[in-house]
Amino acid sequence: MARIVMKFGGTSVADIERIRAAAAFVRREVDAGNSVAVVVSAMSGETNRLVELSEEAGPPAPALDARFVEFDAIVATGEQVTAGLLALVLQNLGYRARSWQGWQIPLKTDLQHGRARITDIDDTNLADAIDGGEIAVVTGFQGIADDDRISTLGRGGSDTSAVALAAAVGAARCDIYTDVDGVYTTDPRLTKLARRIAKVSYEEMLEMASVGAKVLQTRSVEIAMAYNTPVRVLSSFDPPDAPGPGTTICNEDDIVEQKTVAAITPDFNEASVTVLAVPDEPGRAARIFTRLAEERINIDMIVRSASREQGFATRSFTTTEKDLERAIETLNEEKKVIGFSSLQSDRNVAKVSVIGLGMKSHAGVAGIMFQTLADKGINIQNISTSEIKISVLINSDAAEYAVRALHDAYGLDRQAVASDPKA
Amino acid sequence: MARIVMKFGGTSVADIERIRAAAAFVRREVDAGNSVAVVVSAMSGETNRLVELSEEAGPPAPALDARFVEFDAIVATGEQVTAGLLALVLQNLGYRARSWQGWQIPLKTDLQHGRARITDIDDTNLADAIDGGEIAVVTGFQGIADDDRISTLGRGGSDTSAVALAAAVGAARCDIYTDVDGVYTTDPRLTKLARRIAKVSYEEMLEMASVGAKVLQTRSVEIAMAYNTPVRVLSSFDPPDAPGPGTTICNEDDIVEQKTVAAITPDFNEASVTVLAVPDEPGRAARIFTRLAEERINIDMIVRSASREQGFATRSFTTTEKDLERAIETLNEEKKVIGFSSLQSDRNVAKVSVIGLGMKSHAGVAGIMFQTLADKGINIQNISTSEIKISVLINSDAAEYAVRALHDAYGLDRQAVASDPKA
Repeated sequence: MARIVMKFGGTSVADIERIRAAAAFVRREVDAGNSVAVVVSAMSGETNRLVELSEEAGPPAPALDARFVEFDAIVATGEQVTAGLLALVLQNLGYRARSWQGWQIPLKTDLQHGRARITDIDDTNLADAIDGGEIAVVTGFQGIADDDRISTLGRGGSDTSAVALAAAVGAARCDIYTDVDGVYTTDPRLTKLARRIAKVSYEEMLEMASVGAKVLQTRSVEIAMAYNTPVRVLSSFDPPDAPGPGTTICNEDDIVEQKTVAAITPDFNEASVTVLAVPDEPGRAARIFTRLAEERINIDMIVRSASREQGFATRSFTTTEKDLERAIETLNEEKKVIGFSSLQSDRNVAKVSVIGLGMKSHAGVAGIMFQTLADKGINIQNISTSEIKISVLINSDAAEYAVRALHDAYGLDRQAVASDPKA
Repeated sequence: MARIVMKFGGTSVADIERIRAAAAFVRREVDAGNSVAVVVSAMSGETNRLVELSEEAGPPAPALDARFVEFDAIVATGEQVTAGLLALVLQNLGYRARSWQGWQIPLKTDLQHGRARITDIDDTNLADAIDGGEIAVVTGFQGIADDDRISTLGRGGSDTSAVALAAAVGAARCDIYTDVDGVYTTDPRLTKLARRIAKVSYEEMLEMASVGAKVLQTRSVEIAMAYNTPVRVLSSFDPPDAPGPGTTICNEDDIVEQKTVAAITPDFNEASVTVLAVPDEPGRAARIFTRLAEERINIDMIVRSASREQGFATRSFTTTEKDLERAIETLNEEKKVIGFSSLQSDRNVAKVSVIGLGMKSHAGVAGIMFQTLADKGINIQNISTSEIKISVLINSDAAEYAVRALHDAYGLDRQAVASDPKA
């Protein structure tokens, strides 16, 4: 008998019929003798509805404003409804089940309402309940902050809730049920040759999540890695009596046949901003990035390049398409203080990343990338790298072409997945 | 500076525009220097939506079932959303405001999930907050039960929340904002001659609520009476800068010009059940009413009449139209145990009640009622009385006619309302 945490995302609990399907996966684990906690998202569309209501009530609030606290209280209701409904469905199937709100566990967070971080999980009551044979259905995405108010963990926070709970109760694994049947070598909508990966390391998954792979939220992977909790990504649209094997995210030591490159991850939500002729003095660039951080605008791929005029430099960075307008407004308000001459922006860009633990030991991975793109005549606007990732910013019109070429160049098209019975 | 509790029902917070109108009433009280707590219902339609979702998840649960606990967790989210939205709107108007969920106050209840009763309100934090100038926006209809789970107070429970909070913080008054501008001498849809009552006693209001006047929930009036908290019923559809005087519900000693009869209250949601030929032995009738109580079916106007056969009696009672079918099913399941011969039911009935404190001291009130109905040729099927109320069950087709005749007979048509500047 093992403790298992299962998580169902919004499309997996979209209506009562989908909630019944989720319940079928849950009973399968319970009937197998496991102690089960289930983390649920809001029914799909519900969080958006609640966010829209909040926005209708007033303009977006600045960071740390009291309005964020109310936003959290409003938006957190989505998961509360799903948790109650899944508990009801399980009860009606004859199982003992109860819903847990974040504050009931309690799952404690810091005071950063709207994007809180988990600080502590008191697993005593929850572990006792599930070991006693009761199914715990836990509201994802939320906890209770030090001000004794409801806090939310930001978009995708239910993954984080699930993995953190799994770590807290020492679960044998955390199964993330979603609308895809695993993690792929690249976006299957871009090439039919994309393949499901049987096993991928935490580090690789972290890089994939950080560059825009939507399957798992970055922080959930960080927590899984920190606590060495295996995470499985599965489809809730598979038949409950015969679910697919999914993708297991685990320690690299647990992966027998490690590939040099695990995946090619495209991100079409990027936009680039170029700040022209910034005086090349201490504090000017800092001002750009601290103001953007204060406005909670995520930035990425920062480059400093020389300006034509002496004593000035050009600063470029990328942000998300969603944040672009706010980034431009914020910088224009600071134009005098920063002292730049003008701003340029471009939404027609995409970031394509090559990710693989093998880069640590295999030379030439970057060379293959640049050669492949050069051969296809694709111009690289910006580059950023980590130990196991190379990202390039290119024209978004060329991104699909680039992804296919790279997928082929790294042998991902032909890669057999030895440990996968379905392959 | 007084403490004031304000309450806004579902139609008064139906959308953001209505929530803004509610906020205008709130700021008026705050600007006048009062310490204000606001209790809100769910946006109209929202509770029904949540109840339907719960019912879709499984069949209705028997009393005290674990399913009621989940039902509460689901349905309570409606008020949580409204409270957050009103707090947001008030913050955006420049006021300090925060939402409070029942469990945060805490407002404690017993374990009767789905229709819990308030057992204790810790007013310390709330009173400190509002006296410190922060507007407290409190979720109506809900609290936290002794099992540390969310509980709800049953339909209309937000009135109860509001009055109980007003009593707990020693509020000068509790203002109930709704979609009518006060309590009327009878349903204004039945006669244009109905008049708004300026002041009505707790006892009269209690009788009116108990016989189906929808303006206030019975338990809220009981609490107001127990704590001598004045309650005002006002329209949230009045202009916020010039609200109408509404109706004040208060101690009879505070009403200068007491009328013999305060109101004629019709109730069209009645249905009658006749249980024929019940053996006239101890325990048989008790069985009827305990089984109905176990199924949470409200009954009223119980009558025992002789049966043609010796040793048998006929038992009649009224219930709500909504509960009629369940009542019949429940009794049929017990047919052998109770030993009756057959059941008759009738939905085509209405209860018309004459209510007035003056009945205590003025003879002849009942006489006027029976004479008036007899003069109009209206047959009385059943009668029940209290110290200040006479109710008759009549054919529902005659009810409107009866109400008009009685309204006239007791002089309510012509009654001038001295203390009412609008009259």
